[in-house]
Amino acid sequence: MSEVRVLGVAGSPFSRRVELALRLKGIPYVYKEEDLLRKSKLLLECNPVYKKVPVLVHGGNAVAESLVILEYIEDTWTAGYHLLPEDPLERAKARFLAKFIDEKCLPAVWMSCWSEGETQKNFIEESKEHLCILEGELKGKKFFGGESIGIADIAANFLTIWVDVLQEIAGLCIISEDTHPVVWRWAREFLKSDVVKECTPKREKLLSMFQAQKDSKMAK
Amino acid sequence: MSEVRVLGVAGSPFSRRVELALRLKGIPYVYKEEDLLRKSKLLLECNPVYKKVPVLVHGGNAVAESLVILEYIEDTWTAGYHLLPEDPLERAKARFLAKFIDEKCLPAVWMSCWSEGETQKNFIEESKEHLCILEGELKGKKFFGGESIGIADIAANFLTIWVDVLQEIAGLCIISEDTHPVVWRWAREFLKSDVVKECTPKREKLLSMFQAQKDSKMAK
Repeated sequence: MSEVRVLGVAGSPFSRRVELALRLKGIPYVYKEEDLLRKSKLLLECNPVYKKVPVLVHGGNAVAESLVILEYIEDTWTAGYHLLPEDPLERAKARFLAKFIDEKCLPAVWMSCWSEGETQKNFIEESKEHLCILEGELKGKKFFGGESIGIADIAANFLTIWVDVLQEIAGLCIISEDTHPVVWRWAREFLKSDVVKECTPKREKLLSMFQAQKDSKMAK
Repeated sequence: MSEVRVLGVAGSPFSRRVELALRLKGIPYVYKEEDLLRKSKLLLECNPVYKKVPVLVHGGNAVAESLVILEYIEDTWTAGYHLLPEDPLERAKARFLAKFIDEKCLPAVWMSCWSEGETQKNFIEESKEHLCILEGELKGKKFFGGESIGIADIAANFLTIWVDVLQEIAGLCIISEDTHPVVWRWAREFLKSDVVKECTPKREKLLSMFQAQKDSKMAK
């Protein structure tokens, strides 16, 4: 079996997406922490377009962009655990949701926590609208993927510990048990999974990383 | 066989992506032109999240977002023509490129044609960088998909007649035979395909549509 390597950074939910998918499938891998201030030659060679983590290197071939990597993992290791359902319509729904979470929810929530004034107000409003859509999608289901964790759940990992920490640093409340009970319950359920636990950063570590990031931003 | 409907608008390269994929697969469909100023009840029901075209309705089920629709088409009609290669690594490369074209190239080129001053200068610069990456990807190949049109080619349809028309309206030259000969040659090759011809708007029609859009913007 060819070696599988993941190039990632500790605080990145995108890097954790890849690790989580590999762990759900039971694929052994070697993790390599990257320093984004001094990107390795390997990272630059593997992802010359974006020069970003995560990158999956499998048998010497590199795949970049976390959602593309998840599809690659699903296509490559076809036995056992599935990240996508079999039915084409259900696959499309899962892909639509993963894309929506990635392109809409995540940037809006992230920007809510890192902006100020009117801009922040607009991002918070947008985040809440997006989260209401997720509430609707999750109704009556344990996970976005139904009874088990699927591609949309993996894409939404950011809505667990990351949002929790960012909200605390920004002094905001975008997601709570009161405002979005279904997404809130989903996050608790997701974090209960042993495989998720294995590749979720410790809250205190994440808090100090993002606090340092905020302090450095404020000092500029 | 369940009825296949495409909700689209005439000037949209995204709507044409879906039509092109169906035609390459030989799937008969009914096309329904939408009026974006008075969106149909059907469109709003089918795509409540984005309220946008294109939407594919198949056997009463709706799928939105053009790249998600292309994957659905590939998953549903598995015989005959393939939009994605079989090999997982090649599939990942095709998906990476389609995503890059959709999220990076297209917005940069579009904004180059609709902005002014310093902003425009930056978008033109960005567009050229992205196009150079596409030049590299196409070297030695007829299409992004190799010998036949694949998902990345379909995603790049915008770089043919649309860019041609937008450049003329904006009085710009972002892509030409001199600046990006490989992408330029690709566009000519792509437009030679009979199936592409069947679902590419006429140049004059597109020109008058976008000219009207520009005039209306200028009048504001």
